[in-house]
Amino acid sequence: MLEDSGRTELEELGEFGLIKHLTKDIKLVNKSSVKGVGDDGAILDYKNKQTVVSTDLLIESIHFDLTYVPLKHLGYKAVVVNLSDICAMNAVPKQITVSIAISNRFSLEAVEEIYGGIHLACEKYDVDLVGGDTTSSNSGLIISITAIGEVEKKDIAYRDKANRNDLICVSGDLGGAYMGLQLLEREKAVFTENPKMQPDLDGNDYILERQLKPEARTDIVELLKKLKVKPTSMIDISDGLASELLHICQSSKVGCSIYEEKIPMDSTTINAAIGMNFNPVTCVLNGGEDYELLFTADLSDHDKLKGNPDITIIGHITDESEGCNMVAKGDTVIELTAQGWDAFFKNQRDI
Amino acid sequence: MLEDSGRTELEELGEFGLIKHLTKDIKLVNKSSVKGVGDDGAILDYKNKQTVVSTDLLIESIHFDLTYVPLKHLGYKAVVVNLSDICAMNAVPKQITVSIAISNRFSLEAVEEIYGGIHLACEKYDVDLVGGDTTSSNSGLIISITAIGEVEKKDIAYRDKANRNDLICVSGDLGGAYMGLQLLEREKAVFTENPKMQPDLDGNDYILERQLKPEARTDIVELLKKLKVKPTSMIDISDGLASELLHICQSSKVGCSIYEEKIPMDSTTINAAIGMNFNPVTCVLNGGEDYELLFTADLSDHDKLKGNPDITIIGHITDESEGCNMVAKGDTVIELTAQGWDAFFKNQRDI
Repeated sequence: MLEDSGRTELEELGEFGLIKHLTKDIKLVNKSSVKGVGDDGAILDYKNKQTVVSTDLLIESIHFDLTYVPLKHLGYKAVVVNLSDICAMNAVPKQITVSIAISNRFSLEAVEEIYGGIHLACEKYDVDLVGGDTTSSNSGLIISITAIGEVEKKDIAYRDKANRNDLICVSGDLGGAYMGLQLLEREKAVFTENPKMQPDLDGNDYILERQLKPEARTDIVELLKKLKVKPTSMIDISDGLASELLHICQSSKVGCSIYEEKIPMDSTTINAAIGMNFNPVTCVLNGGEDYELLFTADLSDHDKLKGNPDITIIGHITDESEGCNMVAKGDTVIELTAQGWDAFFKNQRDI
Repeated sequence: MLEDSGRTELEELGEFGLIKHLTKDIKLVNKSSVKGVGDDGAILDYKNKQTVVSTDLLIESIHFDLTYVPLKHLGYKAVVVNLSDICAMNAVPKQITVSIAISNRFSLEAVEEIYGGIHLACEKYDVDLVGGDTTSSNSGLIISITAIGEVEKKDIAYRDKANRNDLICVSGDLGGAYMGLQLLEREKAVFTENPKMQPDLDGNDYILERQLKPEARTDIVELLKKLKVKPTSMIDISDGLASELLHICQSSKVGCSIYEEKIPMDSTTINAAIGMNFNPVTCVLNGGEDYELLFTADLSDHDKLKGNPDITIIGHITDESEGCNMVAKGDTVIELTAQGWDAFFKNQRDI
């Protein structure tokens, strides 16, 4: 893609030309987006709702590896990761701003691919791209996205309001994104040794998609509203489950008890883990990037949540003195520790 | 600073430890900051006002050069640049989010210096730091800031509402930041050739400060309110005056006529320009980073604006067909062209 024959150099457009080109088709869909790109700032109007803001910085070879991440997927994922944070406040994402820094090794076509993914995510989630910045970088690709959403004051789900006896719930299934990454890294290593080898990714579409094209669970925010369940606390699972649970417990000054056998995992994830000599539950606890929602709810909401295919109750909140534990298969109790997806050091491995 | 004897490695803290350390003393000062750092997103509440959002990405050796920019100044300036965008909408900045990527060559003390500058700017402008992201980079330093402000709908100053016969006004004086940069680059070049040379910066404090520690003109937004002047259009001067004027004229579909002799410049700027063989007015037209406000106002506001020490009327808006021109000394008319501070190419010179 970077060596596309139809390559247009960015110099031909200039900064303002590039921004114009990339934003010319943007149509605002949200009432709260009063004014989008094209001025010093965007103007938003939430009337009597509250505004939620979240921001993320993604850096080449720290957060993503362009040898196996297609640019369009990267743009999509960069948006999703931010929308997921807005969902984790039980809010509805409405706008994003996008800043991108690119070196001369990228052509206009490459930048268009990234923006293609960004626009796709905006469309899928009914989010308006309302501002940003395009600049040059002397080495890698850098994407910084800020997402903005709206929420009624009474609906906000913070991290620090989990109470003893609350149910601990997760959406979807876990560990897939991490196993997808392991698979991609394995195939990259094989390819590096022998460039003629074809990648062996058969039957693993699900976990590859979990890694390359995650989704933000805006549908769960809607579902909870429909079920009339107000989460007492909520966080999105960008690091591993253990790390996120510890965030909630530490903020809320409570303990927790979850059950290994209740943790939802897809069979593709389990098979890939076993095939690559990983303990599946370790992938869930310490892996990351599933972007599912982890939340607590009052015990009285049990019946509303039970049996819902998108939500699994995996344990309950305990007293702080009891610590944070997982009851493993065979009833051994394992203390949860945060060995999560630490972008600071773990990700600094040479991926 | 980077080789400080009291160096603490970032690994000792980890990502969460670092964020905690850098944000532990943050106190929210604005009513609209409902919830700041420590959750998935910040919560803001503007009641019946509108929200303004602006974002900027600053990259080492593209936007700044650490050989002559002290880290604390860099943090300060990174905030100011964003607040300036909010001012340019005639709004009041209230919150920022800060994402920083740093490589291992930075110590905790270095990061603290950057945050020291960020906090200083927040204090000076009564702005709350409500969120962000800290991650690693494999090469340079990257700072991404999003600023958020509030404004009454009726007060918003867009770029595209300048009308024929409107007055063209600027705040403060222009060209200083550009001459400050030229001076720093000259001394850097001298130093590179002969490291024993001491920099010759005497008598140039003003232009150095304009470059290293610019300010956002929140005071002008206040002043205009007090004077009951609603700018018909407004933009901040981050690129050169010519580029910004062209933005307003193109967006508003008008022309303009400004007068060279009316352009406000400090004597330090003029002297430095002449001393370094620059045409002072070229520095104003094509330089950048003054972060003053350029705005248009209805002719009927002339008496309210006239004689104000912080505001200078430099020309007026004309019909689109007349083009964008500067009447130079000696009455020659020069067409304005955008050779501005183009972060995309000009800044890619090896500074």
